Amino acid sequence: MKKLLASTALIFAAGAAAAETGVTISGMGRFGLVYYSGNVAPTSDTRVDARLRFNIDATTETDSGVVFGGRIRMQWDDGATNAGLSAARLNVSYEGLRVEVGNANTAFDSAALLYNSEVGYVSSSAGNSRSSFYSFSTGALPLPDYMAIFASYSMNGFTGQVSYATPDQSGATVVNEETSIALSYETDMFAVSGAYVTDGAGIADNDVWFLGGAYKGLANTTIGLNYIEEGEDGVTPGVKLGTTIVAYAHYTMDAWTFKGYISNNDYVGNTTDTGFGIGADYDLGGATLAGGIQRDYAEETYVDFGVRFDF
Amino acid sequence: MKKLLASTALIFAAGAAAAETGVTISGMGRFGLVYYSGNVAPTSDTRVDARLRFNIDATTETDSGVVFGGRIRMQWDDGATNAGLSAARLNVSYEGLRVEVGNANTAFDSAALLYNSEVGYVSSSAGNSRSSFYSFSTGALPLPDYMAIFASYSMNGFTGQVSYATPDQSGATVVNEETSIALSYETDMFAVSGAYVTDGAGIADNDVWFLGGAYKGLANTTIGLNYIEEGEDGVTPGVKLGTTIVAYAHYTMDAWTFKGYISNNDYVGNTTDTGFGIGADYDLGGATLAGGIQRDYAEETYVDFGVRFDF
Amino acid sequence: MKKLLASTALIFAAGAAAAETGVTISGMGRFGLVYYSGNVAPTSDTRVDARLRFNIDATTETDSGVVFGGRIRMQWDDGATNAGLSAARLNVSYEGLRVEVGNANTAFDSAALLYNSEVGYVSSSAGNSRSSFYSFSTGALPLPDYMAIFASYSMNGFTGQVSYATPDQSGATVVNEETSIALSYETDMFAVSGAYVTDGAGIADNDVWFLGGAYKGLANTTIGLNYIEEGEDGVTPGVKLGTTIVAYAHYTMDAWTFKGYISNNDYVGNTTDTGFGIGADYDLGGATLAGGIQRDYAEETYVDFGVRFDF
Repeated sequence: MKKLLASTALIFAAGAAAAETGVTISGMGRFGLVYYSGNVAPTSDTRVDARLRFNIDATTETDSGVVFGGRIRMQWDDGATNAGLSAARLNVSYEGLRVEVGNANTAFDSAALLYNSEVGYVSSSAGNSRSSFYSFSTGALPLPDYMAIFASYSMNGFTGQVSYATPDQSGATVVNEETSIALSYETDMFAVSGAYVTDGAGIADNDVWFLGGAYKGLANTTIGLNYIEEGEDGVTPGVKLGTTIVAYAHYTMDAWTFKGYISNNDYVGNTTDTGFGIGADYDLGGATLAGGIQRDYAEETYVDFGVRFDF
Repeated sequence: MKKLLASTALIFAAGAAAAETGVTISGMGRFGLVYYSGNVAPTSDTRVDARLRFNIDATTETDSGVVFGGRIRMQWDDGATNAGLSAARLNVSYEGLRVEVGNANTAFDSAALLYNSEVGYVSSSAGNSRSSFYSFSTGALPLPDYMAIFASYSMNGFTGQVSYATPDQSGATVVNEETSIALSYETDMFAVSGAYVTDGAGIADNDVWFLGGAYKGLANTTIGLNYIEEGEDGVTPGVKLGTTIVAYAHYTMDAWTFKGYISNNDYVGNTTDTGFGIGADYDLGGATLAGGIQRDYAEETYVDFGVRFDF
Repeated sequence: MKKLLASTALIFAAGAAAAETGVTISGMGRFGLVYYSGNVAPTSDTRVDARLRFNIDATTETDSGVVFGGRIRMQWDDGATNAGLSAARLNVSYEGLRVEVGNANTAFDSAALLYNSEVGYVSSSAGNSRSSFYSFSTGALPLPDYMAIFASYSMNGFTGQVSYATPDQSGATVVNEETSIALSYETDMFAVSGAYVTDGAGIADNDVWFLGGAYKGLANTTIGLNYIEEGEDGVTPGVKLGTTIVAYAHYTMDAWTFKGYISNNDYVGNTTDTGFGIGADYDLGGATLAGGIQRDYAEETYVDFGVRFDF
């Protein structure tokens, strides 16, 4: 006697000023194998990876078309004894404008193209930023009194977004506040994106620049380049985490998508300055088989393979 | 690919003895600003307030019309690192009778008119009872072995309800059991309500009386008076928390509702015996903008302003 | 303004290769009284029992008919301050084959007939296995890095299932891995079932055999016999928990189902080697009133009575 949520859009009340209201649950699941050559005994190099994520979203629309809502995420990852709940995000949007409060997204973390070089079943890349910055927290907030505010505006392919996050709005803890901004512009042929965060993750002088571009003009192919001027990790003040440059390409052929990247980071603590990875996704029509092989700056090898699905 | 719950009533199976069964999720969200002049440094006077609440309700109806069900609440408030789950309430109802078990409502806390003087975005009032008593717990139960039973009966405008709550049904902890009763009668023109709780919140000699009346006969206006003979706080046995009297009025004009109250409490620890507050709600048709200004018995000022919505 | 999940099957998109996708919430609730004569003061012999369980299930179907999904369970039992979330199970199935990963079912725990002698409102029996073995965990996993894999295949009344569970897949903790297998065959007249688990619950030499048969050929009656060669408890290596044999019968008459069993276990620590129990269920058409009286091997009496419902 299972109850199933109707997999339909919201049912509108009759009439012109109809208001939407309801709760939606969507999410993703994945399971597969992950290998990392750099694990230290007794931790084994290979493990079964699994994740199940439910996004629980509330929505209410006023007569004038302003949409209020909120989200709590429920998630389990292997390695945890129980699934957990995130803190909540409240949001309000009207036409192209959107504001979030609480466990909000941040401008830098949600910058377009920032994570575009990722490959594999788990989606990861040595070409991602090595710096810390706040984002929507799936687990616990950084501090109990953390409070973030995010605003974005989209129009005709242009998106601008800003965010402000205070780790402790009650004022008792001495941690810096993070501010970030991101701008992007996208057409059918190309996309450009830039972002900046200052005091990322509340770490003094952890300022990060990002510039990225992608070109979609070739048949079935996307190529892109990301440039990240990294910040500091707060452990050794004054020492930057280097500059990260990554070039990547995606090639689609029938149900297959092939991905690859090569990255460079010149942080002084690296074993090697070059990282690279290749991956392939196979679309099952409702789920995706994916795998990838990568080498990181510690010259270790990372391999993953498994299945992902959205619902 | 979001899934949306149909915002409709339960779908009935065909036939006369159709049984309802299903799970519903409803709730509320709010975000705004809260100022309190009495906060002690380093706690700042102003903070961003946010809450997201999901009530997850199960329902099953037997062929003879008895409805069984239960609720778990999922909620996040600013100041917590993660959303949390309440303990569950089980319930059974048949026509006007309803019984709850577990994390049940209590008769005193759910007495009609008890919280009617509240104003503002967060809904609060210096005219509320200062005494402690049990209620449905959104967070953790008072003790792991807490168990409450509640019964109510409604007919023709009359409602009678009783509750019993033991903080520790296993018997190991020495805390008193709370018993409460509430009666109310309502017509289109007026409402009266009375309630009594003994050993509220398991505190010996914490006995509280409540009497309230509201008159709705004036156009667009409700006026009311609440009288509360407060109990003890358990810290200083024998010292009552005074008597609380509050007069309040609501006035509705188009989308606006204006609210105000003036209260008196004669507890010996007060800086002043007079509290008051005014507030205004503006109905956006699916959400509500609300704000309020209040002064409490510590002679401190409390201001809130924000948006609330139900879903 | 409650939102109700449609109590219908998934809504299919038009077309032949339509894919199902969505989230379902089902579960059960119960409340009643439980008495056990063997409780030690100050724990009282009688308590109010209550449980509310929500199974949150995700489902996605690929174009070729492979179904991916996952489950997180949300549950509250009396005695806990808050409801909790289980770890997640990921699953994939195609025709008669099903594989689970993570907080998976185990072959032994889900062996057919294993729990068939249970009676009463809570469903329990002295004829159940006294040995420990893993199962889907409603609460916390045994260890954070616990990982289980389960596979089952069903065809024409035959079901075969195997499972493997490692308490710590990272390899740091010295606990054994559990492996189990179960086979069953069922017709309209009878059912047979057998299962074996080695190193159950990660306890060395905790090997358990189960054989069971049930006969449904008599009008309104099921009779059955279970034989369990118990394992060890890990406290006293080399000492088996005995052999458990239980004979049981169910008799259905209109809305009533009467149940009874008599069991024998020859563990050296028993006060008596004989356990027995009787119970009755009354179907309310959407909910069930049930009660039972049992005696265990400590010669103590257990009584329960209450209502259960599914949704």
